[in-house]
Amino acid sequence: MFEFTVLSTEGRARVGLLRTPHGMIDTPVFAPVGTQASVKAVTPDQLTAVGTSLVLANTYHLYLRPGFEIVRDQGGLHNFMNWSSPILTDSGGFQVFSLSAKNEIDDDGVTFRSHIDGSTHRFTPEFTVDVQNNLGSDIIMAFDQCPEPYNRETNERAMARTHDWVVRCKSAHTRKDQALFGIVQGGVFPDLRSESARFIADLDLPGNAIGGLSVGESKEELRSITKLVADILPSGKPRYLMGVGSPADLVSAVSSGVDMFDCVLPTRLARNAAAMTRSKQMNMKQAIFANDNRPVDIECCCYCCTNFSRAYIRHLCKAKEILGATLLTIHNLHMLHDMMKDMRNAIVAGEFGSWKRAFEDNIDL
Amino acid sequence: MFEFTVLSTEGRARVGLLRTPHGMIDTPVFAPVGTQASVKAVTPDQLTAVGTSLVLANTYHLYLRPGFEIVRDQGGLHNFMNWSSPILTDSGGFQVFSLSAKNEIDDDGVTFRSHIDGSTHRFTPEFTVDVQNNLGSDIIMAFDQCPEPYNRETNERAMARTHDWVVRCKSAHTRKDQALFGIVQGGVFPDLRSESARFIADLDLPGNAIGGLSVGESKEELRSITKLVADILPSGKPRYLMGVGSPADLVSAVSSGVDMFDCVLPTRLARNAAAMTRSKQMNMKQAIFANDNRPVDIECCCYCCTNFSRAYIRHLCKAKEILGATLLTIHNLHMLHDMMKDMRNAIVAGEFGSWKRAFEDNIDL
Repeated sequence: MFEFTVLSTEGRARVGLLRTPHGMIDTPVFAPVGTQASVKAVTPDQLTAVGTSLVLANTYHLYLRPGFEIVRDQGGLHNFMNWSSPILTDSGGFQVFSLSAKNEIDDDGVTFRSHIDGSTHRFTPEFTVDVQNNLGSDIIMAFDQCPEPYNRETNERAMARTHDWVVRCKSAHTRKDQALFGIVQGGVFPDLRSESARFIADLDLPGNAIGGLSVGESKEELRSITKLVADILPSGKPRYLMGVGSPADLVSAVSSGVDMFDCVLPTRLARNAAAMTRSKQMNMKQAIFANDNRPVDIECCCYCCTNFSRAYIRHLCKAKEILGATLLTIHNLHMLHDMMKDMRNAIVAGEFGSWKRAFEDNIDL
Repeated sequence: MFEFTVLSTEGRARVGLLRTPHGMIDTPVFAPVGTQASVKAVTPDQLTAVGTSLVLANTYHLYLRPGFEIVRDQGGLHNFMNWSSPILTDSGGFQVFSLSAKNEIDDDGVTFRSHIDGSTHRFTPEFTVDVQNNLGSDIIMAFDQCPEPYNRETNERAMARTHDWVVRCKSAHTRKDQALFGIVQGGVFPDLRSESARFIADLDLPGNAIGGLSVGESKEELRSITKLVADILPSGKPRYLMGVGSPADLVSAVSSGVDMFDCVLPTRLARNAAAMTRSKQMNMKQAIFANDNRPVDIECCCYCCTNFSRAYIRHLCKAKEILGATLLTIHNLHMLHDMMKDMRNAIVAGEFGSWKRAFEDNIDL
C-alpha cells in the first residue's frame, strides 16, 4: 500500500512519488497543518484548489478534543474532516512538551495536563500508536521526546528514550494501511544526530523524519544538521523534516535531499495579516497598501491574487474580517505548493542548481 | 437601468423581477449583510454558490474604514470586494444612532464619534448620498432617523426629519445607475406609519423601504405595521423591509407583500455556532451532537450539509475553528435563499397559502 519511488535526482535533491492508500504524493511536498482536523480558515475544497496533497493533523489535539473515539466512530479522520487525500498525524510527542499545562516524563511515557481544562492524561508509545491507529491517518509518527536543542545531557537522554520508544511503537503498530515513520533526535550535536540517524535507519521503517529542529537553533545549525542526517537516512525512503516551512529553509532542505515538510507558518502568518512570497514577507496592514490596486503577489495565480487587490486585503486585515485570513491562507499555501512544484520541475529538468541560485539572489532581506 | 416587474401574485404576496445595472434579482429576495465590504466568513465564490443575488454593505462602516475615497479609487464597491452582482448600501442612518460612541442630531444632520477611534464626523442627507454615489452600489438608501419605537414624540420628530431628509437626498442624488429608495418611519404608531408611507410613496422613488422595525418591538407589532405600510406603498415598486431575517418573519412579511429583506441574523448566528433550519435554531455546541453523523440539516443540499457531519461541526465550534463559522454561514445563507426560492415557486404556482400553513405547522418552538 506504500511505495516510495525516486524518479529523478540532481545532486542530493530528488523528485519522488509516494503512494498511499489515499492517493499519490509528488515529493518534495509541503503539508499544511490542520491541528484540530481543520487547516485553519479554509475549506477542504479551497485546500484542493491551492494544490494541497497532504495534510498534517495533531494527535495531541484530537485526543483531547473531540477524542479519538469520536473520530473513529465518525469513520476516521478522512471522513470526519472530509479530506479524501493523504493525512499524516504526528504522535503528540512535540505537543505534550510544548503545549501541555504541566508534564512529567519517565522512561515509560509522559503524564501531562491538558492545556484546555487541566485534566491529567498519560501518553506512552503504545498508546499514541493506538490513538493514531484509531484516527486512521495514512502516515503515523513514532512517539518521541523533543527537548531544547542545546543541552547535551538532555539530548542524550531524549535520544535514548526516542530510540527505545520507536521500537515499542513499531511493535504496537497494527494497521498495514498506515505507514509508521521514525524520528531522529540529537539536538545540535553532530555525533548524537549521526548515531540517531543510523539507529532510525536500521529499523527499516517506511519513512524517516528529522525532529527536534526548527525549535530555536540557528539557521546554520538547521542546515548542517539536516544535511548530516539526510545523508545517513536511506535514499530509498522518504525523508521528512518536521516543522519547516519558510521558503528559504524549504529550498535549502530540498537541496540536502529532504522530501517532506510541514509547518504552521503559512497559515499562522495569514491569520496575522502576513503574505508570503518567494522573496519576502509582506505585512498587509501597512499603510503603503491602502490604495494599491495590485494583487498581493503580482506573479501569483491563486484565487486571492487573481480576484482581490492589496487595498482590499489591507482593509480586511485592518477591519479584522475573517475573509482576510482566508484569502491570505489561500495565497500563502498556493505560493508554497507552487514553489515546491517549481523545484520538482527544476530537478527533473536538471536545472535545480541554477533555479536555487536565482531563488537565493532574489531573496529580499 | 432599473425596472421592477411583478410577475405573479397570490393574495398580497408577489413574485417579481428587479433589474439593476449588475443583474436581475428574483424577488422576494434575502440579502446577506457585508458590513465592511465582506459577508463575514465567506468568499464571494461561496456566496454565489449558496445563491446570493444581492449583498448589503454599510455606508457608516465603509466611510470610517477604509474611507469612500479608497473604495472609489479602487473602482467602486463591486470591484473592491469582487462582487459583480447587485449591491445595496444603507445610508448609515441606523448605525450613527446604534453604533457611534456619541451622537448629536439636529435638523440638518448628525454629528457623531467613530466607534473605532473616537474621531468626530458629520453626516447630512447630501453627504451620505455623495458617499453612496462614490461607493457605487446599485441601490442606495435615503438618510433617515431610526429612533426607539415606543415614544410617540420622538417618533413624530424622527418621522418629520426623515421626510425632510429624503427630499434632500432625492435632490442630491446624481447617478442614474443607482436607485435611491426612501424609508418609512413612525415607530409602532399606525397613524404615523400611514402618514409616513403616504409621504414616501408620493415621492415616486424606484423603491420604498420600511425602517425602524426589528428594533425591539413585539412580533405582533412588527407584523401589523409591516402589513399596514406595505398596503400603502405602491405595488409597482419593490418594498424592502429592513433588518428582518428570521424564517417566520420572512414568511409573514412576504405574505404581506414585501419583496426585499436584509439581516445579519444568518451570518451572526453562524459565528455563534447556531444553525438555522426552517423550523428551528440548533446550538451546534450541544453535547447531543458530539457523535452525530447526520448533516446539520438533513433536508439541505449545501456544501456544509452534503460534506460534513454534526459531529464535525460541533467539534469545529467547540475548538473555535474559523471553518465552523464558514460552514454554518454557508448553511444558514443557503437555507434562507432556498426558502425564498420555495416561496417564489409557491406563489407562482398559486400554492403559497398552503405552503405557508405547512411552514407554520412545522415550526418547532
